[in-house]
Amino acid sequence: MSSSFGKLLKITVFGESHGPAIGFTADGFPAGEAIDLASLKAFTARRQGGKSLTTSRREADEPEFLSGLYNGKTCGTPLTAVIRNSDHHSADYEALSDLPRPGHADYTAAIKWKGNADLRGGGHFSGRLTAPLTLAGGIALQMLEKRGISVVSHVFRVGDIVDLPLPQTLNEFSAASLAGMDFPVLSDEKHAEMQKLVADMQNKGDSVGGIIECGVYGLPAGLGSDMFGGVESRLSEVLFGIPAVKGLEFGDGFALSSMRGSESNDPYRMKNGQIVTETNHAGGILGGITTGAPVIFRVGFKPTPSIALPQKTVSLSKGENAEVTVGGRHDPCIVLRASPVVEAAAALVMLDLYLEEVGYGAF
Amino acid sequence: MSSSFGKLLKITVFGESHGPAIGFTADGFPAGEAIDLASLKAFTARRQGGKSLTTSRREADEPEFLSGLYNGKTCGTPLTAVIRNSDHHSADYEALSDLPRPGHADYTAAIKWKGNADLRGGGHFSGRLTAPLTLAGGIALQMLEKRGISVVSHVFRVGDIVDLPLPQTLNEFSAASLAGMDFPVLSDEKHAEMQKLVADMQNKGDSVGGIIECGVYGLPAGLGSDMFGGVESRLSEVLFGIPAVKGLEFGDGFALSSMRGSESNDPYRMKNGQIVTETNHAGGILGGITTGAPVIFRVGFKPTPSIALPQKTVSLSKGENAEVTVGGRHDPCIVLRASPVVEAAAALVMLDLYLEEVGYGAF
Amino acid sequence: MSSSFGKLLKITVFGESHGPAIGFTADGFPAGEAIDLASLKAFTARRQGGKSLTTSRREADEPEFLSGLYNGKTCGTPLTAVIRNSDHHSADYEALSDLPRPGHADYTAAIKWKGNADLRGGGHFSGRLTAPLTLAGGIALQMLEKRGISVVSHVFRVGDIVDLPLPQTLNEFSAASLAGMDFPVLSDEKHAEMQKLVADMQNKGDSVGGIIECGVYGLPAGLGSDMFGGVESRLSEVLFGIPAVKGLEFGDGFALSSMRGSESNDPYRMKNGQIVTETNHAGGILGGITTGAPVIFRVGFKPTPSIALPQKTVSLSKGENAEVTVGGRHDPCIVLRASPVVEAAAALVMLDLYLEEVGYGAF
Amino acid sequence: MSSSFGKLLKITVFGESHGPAIGFTADGFPAGEAIDLASLKAFTARRQGGKSLTTSRREADEPEFLSGLYNGKTCGTPLTAVIRNSDHHSADYEALSDLPRPGHADYTAAIKWKGNADLRGGGHFSGRLTAPLTLAGGIALQMLEKRGISVVSHVFRVGDIVDLPLPQTLNEFSAASLAGMDFPVLSDEKHAEMQKLVADMQNKGDSVGGIIECGVYGLPAGLGSDMFGGVESRLSEVLFGIPAVKGLEFGDGFALSSMRGSESNDPYRMKNGQIVTETNHAGGILGGITTGAPVIFRVGFKPTPSIALPQKTVSLSKGENAEVTVGGRHDPCIVLRASPVVEAAAALVMLDLYLEEVGYGAF
Repeated sequence: MSSSFGKLLKITVFGESHGPAIGFTADGFPAGEAIDLASLKAFTARRQGGKSLTTSRREADEPEFLSGLYNGKTCGTPLTAVIRNSDHHSADYEALSDLPRPGHADYTAAIKWKGNADLRGGGHFSGRLTAPLTLAGGIALQMLEKRGISVVSHVFRVGDIVDLPLPQTLNEFSAASLAGMDFPVLSDEKHAEMQKLVADMQNKGDSVGGIIECGVYGLPAGLGSDMFGGVESRLSEVLFGIPAVKGLEFGDGFALSSMRGSESNDPYRMKNGQIVTETNHAGGILGGITTGAPVIFRVGFKPTPSIALPQKTVSLSKGENAEVTVGGRHDPCIVLRASPVVEAAAALVMLDLYLEEVGYGAF
Repeated sequence: MSSSFGKLLKITVFGESHGPAIGFTADGFPAGEAIDLASLKAFTARRQGGKSLTTSRREADEPEFLSGLYNGKTCGTPLTAVIRNSDHHSADYEALSDLPRPGHADYTAAIKWKGNADLRGGGHFSGRLTAPLTLAGGIALQMLEKRGISVVSHVFRVGDIVDLPLPQTLNEFSAASLAGMDFPVLSDEKHAEMQKLVADMQNKGDSVGGIIECGVYGLPAGLGSDMFGGVESRLSEVLFGIPAVKGLEFGDGFALSSMRGSESNDPYRMKNGQIVTETNHAGGILGGITTGAPVIFRVGFKPTPSIALPQKTVSLSKGENAEVTVGGRHDPCIVLRASPVVEAAAALVMLDLYLEEVGYGAF
Repeated sequence: MSSSFGKLLKITVFGESHGPAIGFTADGFPAGEAIDLASLKAFTARRQGGKSLTTSRREADEPEFLSGLYNGKTCGTPLTAVIRNSDHHSADYEALSDLPRPGHADYTAAIKWKGNADLRGGGHFSGRLTAPLTLAGGIALQMLEKRGISVVSHVFRVGDIVDLPLPQTLNEFSAASLAGMDFPVLSDEKHAEMQKLVADMQNKGDSVGGIIECGVYGLPAGLGSDMFGGVESRLSEVLFGIPAVKGLEFGDGFALSSMRGSESNDPYRMKNGQIVTETNHAGGILGGITTGAPVIFRVGFKPTPSIALPQKTVSLSKGENAEVTVGGRHDPCIVLRASPVVEAAAALVMLDLYLEEVGYGAF
Repeated sequence: MSSSFGKLLKITVFGESHGPAIGFTADGFPAGEAIDLASLKAFTARRQGGKSLTTSRREADEPEFLSGLYNGKTCGTPLTAVIRNSDHHSADYEALSDLPRPGHADYTAAIKWKGNADLRGGGHFSGRLTAPLTLAGGIALQMLEKRGISVVSHVFRVGDIVDLPLPQTLNEFSAASLAGMDFPVLSDEKHAEMQKLVADMQNKGDSVGGIIECGVYGLPAGLGSDMFGGVESRLSEVLFGIPAVKGLEFGDGFALSSMRGSESNDPYRMKNGQIVTETNHAGGILGGITTGAPVIFRVGFKPTPSIALPQKTVSLSKGENAEVTVGGRHDPCIVLRASPVVEAAAALVMLDLYLEEVGYGAF
């Protein structure tokens, strides 16, 4: 209350991990946009488990479109898509209902909903709920791409291993190649180090956190808004809705706290008749409004709370200290699957801001 | 579009730095709450300039309440308060209208509103617009305090100088003493170092960024919501609406990216018959819902973009490179004044979430 | 854009008449409310076709709950229910895509969505879309009933035949008996006359309009809000979203235009220690806020636009005058099925207003 | 909670009748629109008292624009305007605080806000609060008029006296002449009869209700939306927020309940290469979306609740029956002043829907 966001384009994500289905309802997609289902499937496949270094839980995750699509195109009315839950191991979780797992929402949801939450497999708080968000965002992404706007991301950090930063222009690397990687990292060397660390975590039954860096390229200057409707505000509302996200920074972000104004202000220059900024410490946003430089931000994820090691908890029924061991299959590093989720969130927000500027009539 | 936020309690901040007035309209404050104007004035005074190490621009900033208050109490209807702008030096800025100042919203607002923005003194993007936000938040804060909820903050970092972290219980320090400081820092030693650095920036005509750390104490478990209506999402939407904010993290935030799950999960323990978390890496929030531990977050500010040094820009009318020197009076470190602004934003969001849980009938 | 409404309780209705499914997503139902599925089925069955005097199209309309329900209770997270479309006669409609049917949204939707709307069977504008609204409202109704709030309605008018008005207290008639009637009318005599008129319309291939009168009983005084958040505003937004609704009035409504203030003001009296109004010309609402008297309103429906008679239209492709005959099965009077739809809409709005007053914590 | 409405263009109306000021905050007006203040003044003057047959309370009602206007044009940021309250006779009302006036919101507001409402002069529920709504709408109207969209209204009914209906094209009468009348009626004969009736009410210390009919001309086909975002829904939310409004109908409205589908369906015809409807029973709206024909609706007002005759009430403090006589100056028929208020409400909603279609970039 609420699993919804958006202004002209309103998204509600629904479902529980072990309920009948998960999905989303989108009210406000423009009409007449062809959706390439094969490309959408490739996009959403990037967040699925079942690969090396991720959980072995693997569901087909084939979406069914219940409404809003006609002859392969959006038809203007609310679009609802559902993904059936098929691969339940509820027994893994049900014994835990009395023992809230540290780092999960078991305890807070139990308090909030007075014991009525469906917490099997994390319920509505499961990382699985990022599947419909990714699906919705993948549709938005196709609409943006037709208008010259691209969204790209990579695993910027895992543990203490830090990748190269995203470049300021897409020409310098291939977006397609990042999108083609199961575990997208710019530096081959760092990629190998990260893999090693995650494998080590997996072996130890532990987990590790990380950072996704995302860039939105090709945005016109002038999108967004003053104050609470600014690009940072709008993106943050959605990004902090992704499970495990605990930090967000734009441009140089927290590093700006130790910089001088003479360093961090991005000077304007004329370049080929266009006004550009010489640097992009601001992450493409000033006053909540796009500058025309790429919007760059980093999203910090905590370690997967599900770990195989025994943990201290309490028994809700007995009101006494207890221990819990979380069975089931877990991701040693959720960040490896988070890239398309972050891109999807960014695409949905950017499309909403774009609609505000150009209107539905332009579609 | 939009300078508004909130669900049950909707706030709109209006005004331009050199227009007739700035202010806010709040639709949704509960009725029957006495407002202590003297205490409110003391709270808002904390963000004013005119002190050592801040801009010498000083306005009385005496609010006038136009509606929503009757016999010293909120009466249930929209509350609008205005603060007149009296201390204009528009001539300082008007010559600059053709030369967008780096790091400010001059360029982006000019593009967005096609040359119609009032950018004198930063217009609607001025740090001055935090005065009505602070005023509105100061009212919310009084309502929360009556219900045992406190909001405290300090300057956590300036440049490379880092203060002590906020403690997990209010007993360990005096909230009142922090609130009584013009430049609130927990460590006396770090306070002295920060003062020296900011004075140095002021002398050099440069500026420096910093971080505010804020804690909300006394919250019950169960406030907030799943996904995009979670505490992090709701706070982030407002905090990123504060000028110069470029980063936000909850609990251990970005540091979680290099932690193990076995470290970062907060174990549950029984303590005096209550369920508590032994640590608070999560910043008092799991699944977007409060755990009962204090909500702790850090807000990263970029250096004040207004500096006295000459900077590279372009002439909008001539379409050629140019140089700009920003006159007027500036803060060498905006973070020194940001503490009550962050507290105000937090109070407004928390009151809104609290209203959702208890209803207007409880007031 | 938008098929959504609500503040704390947000409903989105989705689906097209001949698409895979119709349904709703509700974000904000309180947790822990048991849903009586048998009673819900009985409620929604009241709007189904297949009975005498209504369309012969009959679908099972068995809902599937995809999320938000656990162990028969709401669990706090978004509740999505879908109803599969099984009884398609798309061929009836597809030939018509070039010939917009008068009185339907064919033409306006074609313009708005530039030819991309799915208009088979009326698409998203079909009366069939009232099924998910009724389903959602039936759930809200169960929550209200547990708190002593009842919603009752009847066919107040068909053609020139006018039923008795709803009484001011539920004791005077049996809500259950109205709810048990396929064609709920208070006066047996008027019931017979209305049946005759509708049968006549059916024989002639024509249709007729009508009015539903609805009463909400047992509401506390003090629900609702000033101005645009008032009970009338909130109800009207949803009621005018029901297909074919063209008029709405509260209390004495339009008749107040020819009354005197000395007649229409409802005097206050003490009765059994309670403040009551002696009359209820205001329909239980003053200043947008409930008085404690029943909320009474009337909803005017136009005649079913689908009639068997040939009608004048244009060919969109040829840009010339044309004639259209609408095949398929139609309701000669949509009002006969509208009673539960209106009750459902009222229940959803009233629950939302109730939540605002008591908070989620009270559930 | 809430005196706010709108999606892209959000309006909040604030103030109490006898507080310091009333006003509005608008977040979302497009930038660069010149506001003709003289014409705006003429528009708002139409709702003021002090004329024959209306209350003798007359305030200058000179608005002060606090923000959002720069060099005579909207600048994109929130626009706040205030009107000072200068002509208080609070003593007229204060004695009444214990005796709720029948037909007013005194009782319901007292209950809702637990005795904290400022009810002097009706407080926030006073008809005076329509002044800022009219002012905001007058600005929207100027923006619409530049784009060929006109809003016209007249007193359609007072008591049993009924004016001619609005024509289907603006050519048939002069919008300017209606706007120039203090008491706009199409038929001179009916005008005289209405004046006689209202004068009679004034003499008797009584009041009478009435109906405003409003037409929006020049709208393109395709504005508005399916279901709850439809033109009827969006207009109704705002119109029912106007004090004393108790009924609303579009096109033939409630009369459709006694019509046949073969009469009420508007046939399509080609006319000068355009698709038009031969009739306009639907009031220019099908499926919530504009047809291109004028949007025509009628708003029913109850009689002014303030009358000079003694009335039955209760004493809130003593809990016993009492009598109240409402002193002060009152309108014998509020409808005479309601024309610009209804036009203003329509303009704000239509501009919001227009923005959704064309985007801010088009302004």
